[in-house]
Parts: sequence; C-alpha cells; structure tokens
Amino acid sequence: MNVITDKLQVEDNKWIGTRTVRPDGADKVTGRAAYAADNTMPGMIWGKVLRSPHAHARILSIDTSKAEALPGVKAVVTAKDIVEFPLDKSVMLGIQDMRWMCRNVMAREKALFHGHPVAAVAAINEEVAAAACALIEVQYEPLPHVIEIEDAIRPDAPILHDFLKFQDKPSNISATMTAKLGDVEAGFAQADVVIERTFRTRPVHQGYIEPQACTVSYAADGRATIWSSSQGQFMVRAMTSLLTGVPQSHIKAIPAEIGGGFGAKTIIYLEPLALILSKKSGRPVKMVMSRDEVMRATGPTSGSFSTVKIGAKKDGTIVAAQGTFYIQAGCLPGGPLRGPVGCAFAPYDIPHVLSVGYEVVSNRSKVAAYRAPGAPLGAYAAECVLDEIAEKLGMDRLEIRLKNSAKPGTKAAYGATFGKVTFEETIEAVQNHEHTKAPLDRNPRPGVKRGRGVASGFWYNAGGESSAQLNISEDGNVLVTTGHPDVGGSRASIANVTAELLGIDHGRVSVQIGDTASIGFSNLTGGSRVTFASAMVVTQSAEKVIGQLKERAAKIWKIDPEAVTWENGEARPAGPNAGQFPPLSLKELAAKANEMGGPIGAGVQLNTTGADPGFATHVVDVEVDVDLGIVRVLRYTAAQDVGRALHPSYVEGQIQGGVVQGIGWALSEEYLYDKQGRLDNAGFLDYRMPVCSDVPMIEPLMLEIPNPKHPQGVRGVGEAPIVPPLAAIANAVYDALGTRFYSLPMSPPKILEGLDAAG
Amino acid sequence: MNVITDKLQVEDNKWIGTRTVRPDGADKVTGRAAYAADNTMPGMIWGKVLRSPHAHARILSIDTSKAEALPGVKAVVTAKDIVEFPLDKSVMLGIQDMRWMCRNVMAREKALFHGHPVAAVAAINEEVAAAACALIEVQYEPLPHVIEIEDAIRPDAPILHDFLKFQDKPSNISATMTAKLGDVEAGFAQADVVIERTFRTRPVHQGYIEPQACTVSYAADGRATIWSSSQGQFMVRAMTSLLTGVPQSHIKAIPAEIGGGFGAKTIIYLEPLALILSKKSGRPVKMVMSRDEVMRATGPTSGSFSTVKIGAKKDGTIVAAQGTFYIQAGCLPGGPLRGPVGCAFAPYDIPHVLSVGYEVVSNRSKVAAYRAPGAPLGAYAAECVLDEIAEKLGMDRLEIRLKNSAKPGTKAAYGATFGKVTFEETIEAVQNHEHTKAPLDRNPRPGVKRGRGVASGFWYNAGGESSAQLNISEDGNVLVTTGHPDVGGSRASIANVTAELLGIDHGRVSVQIGDTASIGFSNLTGGSRVTFASAMVVTQSAEKVIGQLKERAAKIWKIDPEAVTWENGEARPAGPNAGQFPPLSLKELAAKANEMGGPIGAGVQLNTTGADPGFATHVVDVEVDVDLGIVRVLRYTAAQDVGRALHPSYVEGQIQGGVVQGIGWALSEEYLYDKQGRLDNAGFLDYRMPVCSDVPMIEPLMLEIPNPKHPQGVRGVGEAPIVPPLAAIANAVYDALGTRFYSLPMSPPKILEGLDAAG
Repeated sequence: MNVITDKLQVEDNKWIGTRTVRPDGADKVTGRAAYAADNTMPGMIWGKVLRSPHAHARILSIDTSKAEALPGVKAVVTAKDIVEFPLDKSVMLGIQDMRWMCRNVMAREKALFHGHPVAAVAAINEEVAAAACALIEVQYEPLPHVIEIEDAIRPDAPILHDFLKFQDKPSNISATMTAKLGDVEAGFAQADVVIERTFRTRPVHQGYIEPQACTVSYAADGRATIWSSSQGQFMVRAMTSLLTGVPQSHIKAIPAEIGGGFGAKTIIYLEPLALILSKKSGRPVKMVMSRDEVMRATGPTSGSFSTVKIGAKKDGTIVAAQGTFYIQAGCLPGGPLRGPVGCAFAPYDIPHVLSVGYEVVSNRSKVAAYRAPGAPLGAYAAECVLDEIAEKLGMDRLEIRLKNSAKPGTKAAYGATFGKVTFEETIEAVQNHEHTKAPLDRNPRPGVKRGRGVASGFWYNAGGESSAQLNISEDGNVLVTTGHPDVGGSRASIANVTAELLGIDHGRVSVQIGDTASIGFSNLTGGSRVTFASAMVVTQSAEKVIGQLKERAAKIWKIDPEAVTWENGEARPAGPNAGQFPPLSLKELAAKANEMGGPIGAGVQLNTTGADPGFATHVVDVEVDVDLGIVRVLRYTAAQDVGRALHPSYVEGQIQGGVVQGIGWALSEEYLYDKQGRLDNAGFLDYRMPVCSDVPMIEPLMLEIPNPKHPQGVRGVGEAPIVPPLAAIANAVYDALGTRFYSLPMSPPKILEGLDAAG
Repeated sequence: MNVITDKLQVEDNKWIGTRTVRPDGADKVTGRAAYAADNTMPGMIWGKVLRSPHAHARILSIDTSKAEALPGVKAVVTAKDIVEFPLDKSVMLGIQDMRWMCRNVMAREKALFHGHPVAAVAAINEEVAAAACALIEVQYEPLPHVIEIEDAIRPDAPILHDFLKFQDKPSNISATMTAKLGDVEAGFAQADVVIERTFRTRPVHQGYIEPQACTVSYAADGRATIWSSSQGQFMVRAMTSLLTGVPQSHIKAIPAEIGGGFGAKTIIYLEPLALILSKKSGRPVKMVMSRDEVMRATGPTSGSFSTVKIGAKKDGTIVAAQGTFYIQAGCLPGGPLRGPVGCAFAPYDIPHVLSVGYEVVSNRSKVAAYRAPGAPLGAYAAECVLDEIAEKLGMDRLEIRLKNSAKPGTKAAYGATFGKVTFEETIEAVQNHEHTKAPLDRNPRPGVKRGRGVASGFWYNAGGESSAQLNISEDGNVLVTTGHPDVGGSRASIANVTAELLGIDHGRVSVQIGDTASIGFSNLTGGSRVTFASAMVVTQSAEKVIGQLKERAAKIWKIDPEAVTWENGEARPAGPNAGQFPPLSLKELAAKANEMGGPIGAGVQLNTTGADPGFATHVVDVEVDVDLGIVRVLRYTAAQDVGRALHPSYVEGQIQGGVVQGIGWALSEEYLYDKQGRLDNAGFLDYRMPVCSDVPMIEPLMLEIPNPKHPQGVRGVGEAPIVPPLAAIANAVYDALGTRFYSLPMSPPKILEGLDAAG
C-alpha cells in the first residue's frame, strides 16, 4: 500500500519490513490460544461480584452471614479485606494512585456508581456464587448523584468526595493541568481572525472482545499464581501486591493471551478479589466478567466539554491558541488530562498557547486509559476550529496545517522541544495522495450529500522499562522472551528483528511472553511503547549474543574477536584474516557451545528512551443521508510517520484499528444513563460500535522515516491514528452539509436535529 | 547431627547452611504441585502404547487399519513415524546415542524385549486407545532370546544385533572400557597376599514414585508444547526434536514437578510418541505409564558379573588391583561402564590398576542411569575383597582404607590426578564416631546374629552447563530462575544462597524452574551437578546484580562505584566516603530502578567446572535371623565430605535416600524373569523395595570441607551415598555369620541357602 516501505525492504532488509506469518497466528485461528477465561484448575471455584444498585450511596453496613451460610459458598470478601490506602497520602504505581485503585476494586466508604463492587463471593459454581451475592445484606443511604460534567461542576452539585477541594471549596474538580507558552492574550491581540467554539464528546468504551477474567491460586505457603489477561503482567503483580499485602516475590503473574485492551487493561478489577477469595477458601478461584459488567463497571474513556479558541493572521499564521478542557474522571480521580491539554495544539508551531484541563468526578465508573488517552478529545476541538479558521481565511485546509506545522526545534506548550519530528511529511503525503486529488461527487443521489474532511493528530509515544532474553538452542535456533503482553503484534515484530540481526531464517526464531518470575521487569503494553522498547532491548541482547558468537569463533580460529564479523548467520574471519578460515554458522557454534564455555544467550533490562512523538494526518470522505441522518464513511486515508514498520501488516492494522475506533467515537458510540444514574446500554446490542459493514477499507499511508534514536528507526504507531478521526469526520460532515456539529457522536438523531435547526 | 556444620553456620552465614522452609513444600503437601499427569487441556485425547509380547522377535509387518477404523481413534504411530538414525553412524545427545534412542522409544527392525513399544494409539479415552492397541495386527517372527549376562556372552548365544562385533565376531558385547595404571602383573608380583573373588548383582529399578507421563500439544503452525516431568526439560526438548524432526525452537518443554527420577528420567519414552500423535490428530495428547509399564519398559540399572583381585603387602599397602566388570546394557547399547571401571578402585592410592568393563546386551529393557550409575557395582566387589584382605592381614578394616586412601595428588586409574580430595576425613569421621566405638552384642537372642560392616565409595561429580536469571521486583524482592528440574531441593539451596549473597530475608526470595523458552540452556539434573552448578551461576548473577545496585547507589551519592559496599541488603558508602550518606536498601534502590536506568536483573549462562569428586565411608550394623534368612539393618552411619551443605536437610536427605536405595539393592530388590523372558515381578507388590519399617534412621555425617573451586564450597552430594551400602552390608552380613555372600540381593532364600551350604 505504500511504495516507500517496499523500497526500504528491498534495499535494506531481509526480514524487517516483511509480512511474515505471525507467531501467534495458528494458535489464535485454531482456538488453541489460551485466554484468561480458558484456564481451569483442579478444585477450582468461581467468584462473583455483588455490585451497587445505587449510583451514589453511603454504605452503612454489610452483613455477609446469610451468604456465608449458603451451602457451596467457600469465601466472601468485602472492602475490609482489601488493603486500604488512606485518602491523605498518595501512593503511586506508575500513573495509578492506589488511594483510588483500592476504592475502585471495592467500594469502601461509599458506592460511587451503579455497578460499583461492594462484595464478592466464591462458591462451587457461578450459580451458587450469584445466589450468595443476593443473600448479602447491604444497608445503603442513597445520596443524590451526578452524571454529566456540566452538572458536576455546578456550585450546588452533589459532591462525591469530601476531601476534594477546588479553589478552597468542596468540588468535583479533582485535578487541573496547564500547558502554557508565551502570552496568549498578547497572541490573540495580533490575530486577524479569532474563532472560539465549544465541543462535547461522550464517554466511549474501549470495546475489547475479551471480558476481564482471571484465575488466582493462593497456596498454603503464601505464594500466589495469577493467570489473567492484561496489558502488563508486572502491573498485575504490583497492583495485586499493593491491594492484598502479598509481596511481589510471592506473586507470579502469568500473562494469558489478551483479546484486546486498548488501554483499559492497564489496571485491574478482579485479581485482588480472586486472590483474597483463594486465600480464604484455600481453592483456586476463577472470575470472569459478563459483558454487562464490563460495560457498566470497567473504565470507558472520558467524555469531555471543551472550548477552543484560535487566532490567526490573514496569511494563515496561527498566533495564539487557547483550550479549556473539562474531562470526566469517572467516580474517582485520575483522568487523561495530559491527552487534550498536551496534544491538542502540539502539531503546530504556535507562539502563544494556553491549554488548561479540569478533571471532573461524577457517579460513573472510573475511566481507564483508551488509546492515546484523552488526545482525541483535544484534537477534535482544535482541528475543527482550525478548519473554521481556514474557511474564514479562504485557505486550503491542508495548507494551513502545513504552514503552521511543528518542525524540528519547535517548542510545544506541554514542555518538549521537538527533535526530528515529521508532521509536515504526513500533510504532504495526504496532499499528494490520489484520495485528496480525487473529485468528490457532492450530490450523488437525491437526499445524499457528500463531503471531505481532514484533520491531524499528535501522540507523545513512550519508551520505558523493558527486558528481553535471547537464548540459542542446542540446534542453533533462537528463543526470545520479552515481558509485555503481545497486544498488537510485538511477537511478530520481534521475530523479524531477531532473524534480521542474527541473519537467519525467520522460522528459526521463537518468541514468547514471559511471566513475572521468568523475565525482567517490563512496563505495560501501552503508550505505543512496546515495539519501540522491546525491539531496542532485543537488539541489545542480540548484539551481546553476536559478540559471544564472534568470541567463540575467534577462539576456534585463534584470532582476535574484533577480527571476526557476523554476516548471514555466520561468523567470518575479517580484516587480515579474511578468507583464511571457512565461516562458522550459528548451528555450528551452537553445537560447540558446551566445549566453548557454556550455553549462548544474553538478556538486557533497560529503561528505554528516544521514543519521539508521532503525528498523523487523515483525509476522509463521508456521505450523509439527510432524511435518515445516517453518516457513512466512504473512503479513509491515514498518513503517519511510522519510523520503521518492522512488520507492516501490524502497523497497518494499528492504523486501521485506530481509525475504526475513531469512527465509532465520532458517529455512533456513547454511554446513555437513565435518571437513576444507571447505564442504559450496557451491551454490544445497544452500545453501537462500528462493525465491518460500517467502515470502508481504511488505507494506511505508512511513512517510514527512521527514528534516529532507535536501532531500527522504530517510532510508536498504535495511538496517533485514533487522534484525528473525530475532527476529520466532523469536518467532512460540515463539508457535506454546511452545518457544523459541535457534539459527538454525530448519530442520526443528532444529525437530523442539527439539520432541522439549520433549516 | 554434625557439629562441624553448626559451627560453620554460626560463624559464617545467616541463610546458607540453615534449614529454611522449602519453597516447594506447601504445594507438595497440599497436593497443589502439578506433576506431569496433572495436566489437562481442552480437546485432549489419550495415548496408549502397544508393546511386544515377545522377548525377541523380528517384526514382519504392522497393520494398523482396524485400529484406525475404531470409532474414537484419532491417530496411530509406528516406528516409521519416528526419525530413524542409521545404525552405522553415531549421533550423540550428551551420553545418549540416538541410534539406540530411536529404537528404544519404538521397536524398529525387531522387538528386543517383552514390553518393547511397537505402536501407539491416541483416542478419545484410555479405554478406546487400549481397545485400538488390541486391534493392531503385528506379524512377529519370534527369535531365541537371552536374559542373563553369562548366557549372553556364550559363543552360541542368540545375537541381538548383527552389527555388533567383538573381536571380529558377532557378539552381545556392545562396548568395552579400560582404566589402567602401572603394570598390574608386576604389582601382584610384589604382593604378600592376593585375593580374587567373583560377584553378581541383579538389575534394580530406580523406583521413583511418579510414572513417566506427558501431555504434548502440537499446533497447526508446527509449534509444540510439552508438559512432562523429567530430569531435564532441555533434554526433553532436544531428544524429542531429534526423534520427531521438529526443530528445537519449535518445541517448548515445560518442566512439571517431578516425583523422583534417580537417573531414569534423563531419557524419554513417551514424549516423541505423544508429539507425533498430537501432530497427526490435531489434538493435545496425554500419555501416562502404568506401574507395570514403568517396571517392564523403563530402564532399571545394570545387573553385573564382576571379578576383582587385590594384592597387598603384609603392612596393608595395596600394590595392585584388577577388576573385570560385565554389566548389562539391556536390549540396546549404552550402559554405565564408567561407573564400575572408573570408581571401583578410585578411593585408593594404588600403583598398579587394571580395570576392564564389558557392556552386554540382552533381551531386557534398555538400562537407564541410576544414581552414581554403575559405581555401586564396582564398589561392591572391590570393597568386599578389601575386607577379606584386611581380615587375612589381621588389620582393622577402616585402618587399611585409611592407609591406602587417595590423597591430593593421587593419580586415579580413570585418568584424573586428584586435587583437594578428602577421603581420609570420611574414614576418620567414621573411626571417631560413637557408632564405630559402640559395643555390638553379636548374639542378642537365639537364632539372631549381629555384625558390623564398613565400606567406602567414590563418585566423580560433575559441573556442566547451567543458566540462571536473577531479577529484582519493584518492591525490592528477588526472583531467581534456573533451568533444571528441582529433584532434590535445588530451589531450597538457591533460595538460601540468594538470600545470603544479597543480605536479605529468605522470605523475600522466590525460586522457580524455567521452561526451555524462558531460561538459558541447562543440562540435566544428574551427576550430582545441580546444586554445584546452579549455585555457581546464581552467585555470578547475584554478583552482577549487586554490581548494578552499587553503581546506582554510587550515582545517587555521586561517588565512585568502587567506593560502595553491599552489606546486609544495603549499599553503603565505603573508604573515604564511609558514613557520609545513609545506606540505601535493596527496597529503596528497587523503587528508584526506573529513574536510574531501568529494571535490575542479570543472567548468567555457563559451563561450570571445578566439581571435584566425592567420597563416602559408611558403617552399618545388621542382624540376621538365621532361621528365616532375614537381614535387618539396625544402625547406619554415613560419612561424606559434602563441601558445604547449602541446605543441610536436603543434604541429609540425599545421604539417607542413597543409603536406603543401597539397602534395597543389597537385600531385597531384583528383576525376576520367566523362561519366556517376561518380567515376573513388574509391580511394587512383588518387586521388594525397602519401606519405612525396613530401615532404621540413617545417620548422615556431613563433613563440610569447602570445595575451593566453588564460591560456597559446594561439592556434589547426591550420588556418593549409594556407592558403599552394597559392600558395607555384605561385609556386615559376613561379620555376623562368618559366611560371605558373593551375590545380591542377600534375600532370605539366598541367606538360607548360603547358611545351608556353609553348614
């Protein structure tokens, strides 16, 4: 799909950049891959969660005696069994504050949303566990609840947490964040045109296929084993350790295959409950969420309420940008403020920026990370206003972006001074693409209008801690272990890198994900970091192994190791010794491993750095049925600097997947609450995610501009593609209808309402 | 039990040398430990082996069509599915020749023993698989068979293998080995007394509790996972790879807990069959041997037929020793010749030695390694003759051993020149022990006679390839992974070493055994090598980790890393900086790991050396019921240089276990064949292993004389204790009765027969 990629492949690499068979493919298509819910154990019992029927209520008492007396019930857990982290002292695990996590896995003082866990039961089967849950007597004092941001920030709003203060008053604003550059007032004063608009988005769920599930076995010696799928077995270990008091050395977290996470599986819900139930019952305990529980009680991403103001000169130079972003945190603090605050204006070189975010708690499930957390919210607002600026100035919408694009050396309001950024290239790629040049039939049929929109987006990307171990088997094949779950193809990428570096056939490389006891600490699969970081540690491990192989060849040849090169899977004498000895292959050196000093292998543990940000520019054609209000995406092209596509299919998959999720966010997905604060559409039937028939084939336009700070040039890929779609589609709908929508999703009722209002 | 140990503990170490709770204890006593047969998988089917009903027969044809047509049958395997290794070219895996292994797992040209696998079936359950086995039509041409060594070496014996030649004639002698020193004829010429005797021992089974078992899942992408218990997951991987043609990188061998192996699980039987059945059926296949199959078709150790001649001067100086050892290999070549040939005379400094071994094939199951393979056979003969020499010279039986004991610098006939050997110390320990000094009531009751015997023994010990990985968790605890199954407490020893080196509480260390994909190559658990080798690689890993910790502390303090010491789990500034900064604990440094460069951990892969041999001297009191012929062991003391007992309970357990197995070998265990060459006592009811009531509490006398070539002073422990018991008990029975038995086991019928013959 992208000539740049193919050229690089041919020129440089045999395996990197090729579409090799994915290592986990056969297991997944034949049903042999073991997901979290696939695990069973002798003596295993089932855990179920009792959830709050109130959106907001004080818990006065919990009586579990009747449940405990029910035949078949083996253990009951309530908040008193979970380690409490006092409200006055933050204890952080990564970006998670354990004060909130301990209250999220089990309501403590109050139930904070409809579906908030208040107790859990383990019993011989799911039915008995459910019956026991019904026997638990909880005395609640119902409290007034609040769902929407606008309601929660009213002076008279019900306050969720007494300890939260904003401007010295009790408040539901749980955090603020500011990114500032220059003097925004002075900036606007220089502007020839200023546009300010307010936007709303609704919470949307990550929508992974696989519900949260785990099996936990706590043994008599205080050692626990956890099988669960997550975006980080080390996170599972650490968070479960903190919430249960079992030390990390006593917990082995085994990563199951994961059926999607998109950020939501960077925190846990069930594991601490299952561990305590296992400890109490002496049995392995399995817990699997229903889809209803997943929708109701695991984090969606934040809804938002944002105002963006942009000022530009007549020539299109943006002189000032200001954003005010209110975002939902759910019932406990900890929302993705840095997404909108930092990313909204980051693609542009703007001298004066003021970006302020407010995080607002309300009686919803606590939000969890979702692909480029929060960034789409900011980009939606900023990129729509930018479109209006362009229109007002009569400028091409890509041209205004190009003119103002961030360049190497640009200072971003969030604090960074950019290194080698390649935003311009993504705009130019879209400008030059046939999609952009193709004529658009604006009125193909009566009642149907078409439009085209563009938007850009930014994501920080990340490095962080990763570990790898590379071992050579006795028959000269290669085993690689890394420590983060393979969510988006990291095994496939690592297999390509390893085969390339060692110069051997791809089929001779096996890649696996290690459990917490067998591989060094590795941070979450998230932040678009894993391919970047794991390729880096695998590269260093491979270099060490190649060093060992060269040393051994040198010993056999009795020459200096520096006079040995490694090429095509063979050690060859080089320099003055070139050609003096026949080459020694990996297989030959592996066969001599014992006599030459022992097994061959090396591991690397590193906090990786150098993951520069990613930029994306998208163009989309939509068609609106003005009678039915249905918006249909006709064509979508997504350009992105991917650094180096180690496995192009996965890079394309990431871009396509991000866009599809953006389409859902823009057009159809939203959380609907009833007046009692109960989620009304907790299932895939009523919560409308895009299905195949809703989307065209997304065309990914991979720009392979190597990241100079990475050995293979990798740049994070997975998150940037979800940033532009909300604005791109909104801009396209405007282009089609001439009516602009400031609220997502642009669902049929809203489209019809908007068209009615516009006459 | 041993003051030397206790003194060392107190003086030197906090954890090394203490009896910490074993890491695998709770799992094992609560039944949670997963042995090979405990594994189940969705869609799993069962495999069964069809075995030869003949002791020796040519296989003319195998028709599996009826079996394959039976409903519920999913796959059938015969020899044609197993990779054939041609007879004319040796392909070695460690000490195993694949020519023999491919014919051992499945009969190829001929069935060589009653119970030899000829086919295997996988079906929906064990019953259907067994029924299908019965439907397989095998045409045999029965051949004359031979069982005993004496019969097999007759000129007219049925020859098992046409390709075997000895002195240019077809023969059942499959190998010979010679150890030579000086000129044995010249030596005997100097002797004042020469005694030559012939001895016989019977094959005995290793008698592990857990039968061979495995589950193998072969996936559509050609990747296989094996769950099985063995003495080496890497051996399982390599041997299965060779026998099936699946590359090692495509096989993941997961070590289950092991319920005993004693050498017998250093080869495989079921794994290649299960893999091929899984490949053919597309299902995971489980195979579990019955006890009958274990006894009939997995290796016992060799029976033997040995002649030993020793010459000594009047003062007790041994001047010459000669041994001729015929040992059974079972039906295919590969018996433990180096055991009797190398070990029989190794404890002594003898100028002229000729030790020759002959390996003899016969129609028995192929022998497998058994604790100090073959060494007890040689020691039995040599130590009995030595007893007779002492008696003839009127010398104390310990004194003659001490006088002739090997010392540092002694040259052994098998080739070594000894370093720091400590044989003398074991004799002196027995001499000084209260047991030796205690009076013996020789006729406590009518019809009962008591005697005391001593004997010594030697085992090579071994180092070899081991890998370790040591990781620090975020909360500052420690995870250690090694690559060899924990048969005799290696996890416990490693936990002690790790806690000691890092200066932290033992409870903060977790030790696990890695699968073949997650840890570097590690050789078998066997040869008394694992504690030696794994403590060495773990020590080097810990040193690397301490180096990392010191570097990070130095960075924080802005001083040189060399000016940092690691003590009691803390980095402290030393030298000119001593006391300038408060110490930084492991927990504190672990918490800072990310900001200081990433995770903390290190791995080491090494071919370890320096495992000097082990010596043991035992003293035993027996009581013989002269009417019933029953020999009862009353008291047993076993002295051994153990180097350093990392975990004394396990060292004692090894010594006690070795002695108990020696008692069984000496008194009750033997393979009994009927005239058709069928094993008559293939079960624990008829094959008489010692049970608790048969043995006294064995007293281990651990001499902790540190091995200077090991960081903790470890010396191999597990095998030397099985070497002396056969002779010690034979010598004690002679001491009781005045009648010497030259054949084992000294079972009641044999004792009565001997007493009758002696009148």
